[in-house]
Amino acid sequence: MIIHLKSGADEQLIAELSQEINAFRLISFGKDTLVCSSVIKEIPDRYTSIIDSWVAFPNDMQLANIDYTNSKREIDLGFGKIGGNTSNTAVIMGPCAVESMEQITQSAELIKSLGLSVLRAGSFKPRTSPYSFQGLGHKGLEHLDIIRHEYGLKIITEVKDASHVDDIIAFADIIQIGAKAMYDNAILKKCSKTDKPVLIKRGFGTKLQEFVQAAEYILSGGNENVILCERGIRTFETKTRFSLDLCGAAYLKEYTNLPIVLDPSHALGFAYGVPDLARASMAMGVDGLLIEVHPNPAHAKSDAAQQLDHDTFKDLFESLKKIAGALNRNII
Amino acid sequence: MIIHLKSGADEQLIAELSQEINAFRLISFGKDTLVCSSVIKEIPDRYTSIIDSWVAFPNDMQLANIDYTNSKREIDLGFGKIGGNTSNTAVIMGPCAVESMEQITQSAELIKSLGLSVLRAGSFKPRTSPYSFQGLGHKGLEHLDIIRHEYGLKIITEVKDASHVDDIIAFADIIQIGAKAMYDNAILKKCSKTDKPVLIKRGFGTKLQEFVQAAEYILSGGNENVILCERGIRTFETKTRFSLDLCGAAYLKEYTNLPIVLDPSHALGFAYGVPDLARASMAMGVDGLLIEVHPNPAHAKSDAAQQLDHDTFKDLFESLKKIAGALNRNII
Amino acid sequence: MIIHLKSGADEQLIAELSQEINAFRLISFGKDTLVCSSVIKEIPDRYTSIIDSWVAFPNDMQLANIDYTNSKREIDLGFGKIGGNTSNTAVIMGPCAVESMEQITQSAELIKSLGLSVLRAGSFKPRTSPYSFQGLGHKGLEHLDIIRHEYGLKIITEVKDASHVDDIIAFADIIQIGAKAMYDNAILKKCSKTDKPVLIKRGFGTKLQEFVQAAEYILSGGNENVILCERGIRTFETKTRFSLDLCGAAYLKEYTNLPIVLDPSHALGFAYGVPDLARASMAMGVDGLLIEVHPNPAHAKSDAAQQLDHDTFKDLFESLKKIAGALNRNII
Amino acid sequence: MIIHLKSGADEQLIAELSQEINAFRLISFGKDTLVCSSVIKEIPDRYTSIIDSWVAFPNDMQLANIDYTNSKREIDLGFGKIGGNTSNTAVIMGPCAVESMEQITQSAELIKSLGLSVLRAGSFKPRTSPYSFQGLGHKGLEHLDIIRHEYGLKIITEVKDASHVDDIIAFADIIQIGAKAMYDNAILKKCSKTDKPVLIKRGFGTKLQEFVQAAEYILSGGNENVILCERGIRTFETKTRFSLDLCGAAYLKEYTNLPIVLDPSHALGFAYGVPDLARASMAMGVDGLLIEVHPNPAHAKSDAAQQLDHDTFKDLFESLKKIAGALNRNII
Repeated sequence: MIIHLKSGADEQLIAELSQEINAFRLISFGKDTLVCSSVIKEIPDRYTSIIDSWVAFPNDMQLANIDYTNSKREIDLGFGKIGGNTSNTAVIMGPCAVESMEQITQSAELIKSLGLSVLRAGSFKPRTSPYSFQGLGHKGLEHLDIIRHEYGLKIITEVKDASHVDDIIAFADIIQIGAKAMYDNAILKKCSKTDKPVLIKRGFGTKLQEFVQAAEYILSGGNENVILCERGIRTFETKTRFSLDLCGAAYLKEYTNLPIVLDPSHALGFAYGVPDLARASMAMGVDGLLIEVHPNPAHAKSDAAQQLDHDTFKDLFESLKKIAGALNRNII
Repeated sequence: MIIHLKSGADEQLIAELSQEINAFRLISFGKDTLVCSSVIKEIPDRYTSIIDSWVAFPNDMQLANIDYTNSKREIDLGFGKIGGNTSNTAVIMGPCAVESMEQITQSAELIKSLGLSVLRAGSFKPRTSPYSFQGLGHKGLEHLDIIRHEYGLKIITEVKDASHVDDIIAFADIIQIGAKAMYDNAILKKCSKTDKPVLIKRGFGTKLQEFVQAAEYILSGGNENVILCERGIRTFETKTRFSLDLCGAAYLKEYTNLPIVLDPSHALGFAYGVPDLARASMAMGVDGLLIEVHPNPAHAKSDAAQQLDHDTFKDLFESLKKIAGALNRNII
Repeated sequence: MIIHLKSGADEQLIAELSQEINAFRLISFGKDTLVCSSVIKEIPDRYTSIIDSWVAFPNDMQLANIDYTNSKREIDLGFGKIGGNTSNTAVIMGPCAVESMEQITQSAELIKSLGLSVLRAGSFKPRTSPYSFQGLGHKGLEHLDIIRHEYGLKIITEVKDASHVDDIIAFADIIQIGAKAMYDNAILKKCSKTDKPVLIKRGFGTKLQEFVQAAEYILSGGNENVILCERGIRTFETKTRFSLDLCGAAYLKEYTNLPIVLDPSHALGFAYGVPDLARASMAMGVDGLLIEVHPNPAHAKSDAAQQLDHDTFKDLFESLKKIAGALNRNII
Repeated sequence: MIIHLKSGADEQLIAELSQEINAFRLISFGKDTLVCSSVIKEIPDRYTSIIDSWVAFPNDMQLANIDYTNSKREIDLGFGKIGGNTSNTAVIMGPCAVESMEQITQSAELIKSLGLSVLRAGSFKPRTSPYSFQGLGHKGLEHLDIIRHEYGLKIITEVKDASHVDDIIAFADIIQIGAKAMYDNAILKKCSKTDKPVLIKRGFGTKLQEFVQAAEYILSGGNENVILCERGIRTFETKTRFSLDLCGAAYLKEYTNLPIVLDPSHALGFAYGVPDLARASMAMGVDGLLIEVHPNPAHAKSDAAQQLDHDTFKDLFESLKKIAGALNRNII
């Protein structure tokens, strides 16, 4: 249940109600708001005086629910807005991992040359094997910071576990929560206490309901700037790494108020079909694309098979612009 | 292994080789051809005189392999060609099932008004429950035949089991093998003995390798006109009926020589996102779309939730034309 | 809805009701019975005179529903009964496919030596690749018939498509419908018109609801002797061929009135763990086990990796008897 | 690659080799050991003098590989040993979550009365929804500590994120890493620096290879006491909460040297079939069972549907003892 409080409502009553229904208090669209479990369907009469309006939902998809807002949330990424009535699609690209200054300098040059504004690159890499490359860690953030200032780019980078969540929140322009970390309540709660945009990647075994509930952790803590990223789910098929769940994206677009970003690179796991999938994603009218591009994919330290080289990305970008044009969308 | 025989080769030797390697004999791209299990990697020397050339493959994806042809197969649908160098995308639509003359007359009117040429509608419906509507059967084919002649449309309709496979082969312009029937060897073998186009739907639990092997049943029997249709796979997600596997479609596009058709209607299972998914499919540059459209979806006897109404389809069709234009593809 | 008719009820009224609710008529537990879609929740008053009792179900799991019978169905396999109050578990084994007289003679010798009574072996093999061994066909049935008479064994063998369903129904003591054929309405309907036991294997992508509905096809046609066989479902895991769904088996045991057989061989796809899985299955208290055993697994023409050799099976059988003893079950 | 160093080997050379191959150094079965990525297949000749023996593996399943040890690891749980040649199965039970002193006192009484020695109960609950009961946190640990001392029981309890990992490591007798946290590198690394037993639950979307690699994180850091727990994987089936992957358990039993525990409660998600699944698990001969039991399941604050009541557990325990007896296993 979401409850909008009257302005100037009695703080003592608010506290009692909060306690009784075990609610979170937040500012939601400028309003003093309480949110509690959807199990609660009614409010005792004694609180009538402090309540402006309330709405009950059938399950714990509440603040993210399109029925709460009747419109999409608009989120400012620093270089432009997505969602709302913007018809904007953010094209976000860069290498899987920061590997060296030289590498991300080349990435930054490409981004600038295409008129784009944001660089993606991970520095804390969640790796399944302890024996794989684990990322440059804080050194990587230093590299990214230099690029950020030199090229005037925004940086999206990933938090993989709670041990460095504070550092990523302080550093990133857009915080990315990885697919393996999206159930991590400690990360989610920390990200609810900033107002930076947070892009949550759907776990590859995560149901849409659970995915939206991860967003609810952040929204209920008071951060309204949450973006959902579908990046492929694990199915029985093994010829491809994962399967990009566009049906799931269609569901999220229909039933939630959050912007949707699609990541075709991790979904397919191979570069060959990423351009086709990126075009498909653009034609769906989503709010962003996240694409892995590396100056020299064959020598990438992680995800070598799936990163596009620069020339392939340039060709792809031309066709993305054409599709955007045909459908009256703007690329930012 | 695929073996192209010399013209005028000794029939006795051909027979002995066929027996020894347990081969199928067929005409493939105009050549007298044997094909046998990929387990066979070498041919005894005594057959050298009858062999023009041969190629061995790592697995039983052989006649369908892009490495066999180095180009896509071109297939004539009667109203236009797909595949090869055509850049054509066939837009195929119509109701889930023939329900009445009135219903499919309305469908035919819409198809003609949009300049399209083919009607989809099932008459033998594979139903999970014995208590559900099972289709009009032969009566439905009679209805479709009237429409075919009155409106000059081609008909694609589905075989659900071997008991009526001969009837469908005789009747349809394009034979559709349903997702639940695609492992049926009896159907596949019968369809290998016609030269009508055969569209095979991927089973919802079917691996890509198995899907292509179903096509191999038809190709190895001598029918070169096989089309693969991805229509959604079953995953852990239940908010949507299935998940349209565009990663799988990208794989098939890259590694096989068969045209690819996408069916967003069965994948999502709900009408709301079908236009977005159809646009995505078009932007992938596939060879065809299969979309369920019903004059009155709310009263459809099967798949009521997922069929588009006529106005929605008309809007969708406008945007499909724009995307096709942007990507230099032609809608047929 | 299931309707039990009064004996001597007016045939004209029965016919009208059947037509109105689109019902199947059958003898169920000795009673003249109609069954129709669970969508029907009420019967018009005019039919009151012909109705003894009726029950409505929430979905199309009806004749198979434990709430219909309040007890398990008992099925006579010819060599003993399973289900009901028998506490019997049928141990059914044999090779994947009939390959030669010599091979199945060895199998029969083993079966007899252990005091068992039934041989499993396929003769029409559903193969994903057209280039793989397809079974001996009718020749294999001839072999099996000799064994049947010489050793006094019952034979369970598989129908793979509708082209030979009549032959299998005529030949087999227990008819097996394969996992890839279980949606085949033509096979299901034919099997509803015999009273031989029919073992349906769950498709590897088949939901439990759909699986039970396949049984409903047979039950609603009048054959009360249906057995459900769980043989592994397809998941994201690829180290094993499939995953034996014991949770699904637990569901079927709780909510249906049909005997349950488990097939650990196809589930795992490798011989190494089959004994452990067979012991687990026995300890669940199911009605039967189906295990692939071959005199010489390394030379098997199909499923070579998963068949147990005779010595391994003998050891397994000893431990199965101990578990059965501990849990007061009888092996037949 | 795993390298056993000579005792008294030159520390400078060890350091150089470690750096060159990016290795972890640990004591493994009493030997001074380096382990590095399986990508490394050879060691430069200059290090020959410091190396006693080495072994290369095809992938990053190394310290956990049965081919490394040729026998199962034996792990001391404080109240008995599992693995190795013990033939012991630990029966671990208790409520999903600590809810009150009264509740876990009842659990402790039951455990003692059955002659068992360990209590499971979570205090930091990973919840998908922010609006659900999140556990008692540190207060719950205080409750558990009282029980531990009063009843002389060992405690297994769960870490859900890195924010409290140090507290759990300090508190628990056996540390449980939850299914949603098992990719968390920070948790895994912390748990590698204790020598307490660590039970890792397989993520519901986790491949066996990845699951074992999570264990490698702990083993490579020097903690040899790792236990794998299969607790159900997510499949397309929705009638049950998950599917207990006994095929996966068979694989782990065959190919790893780690003890295996099965958790039927979370797999099925409903109490009705848990006894059958527990019996099946026992008959597989695994090293432990983890079963949710609650004094009053209907009032449980989490997982209410799947917890057994005390009487049901007592009956189950009787049959577990019989199966153990039949198969010469000991329950601890």
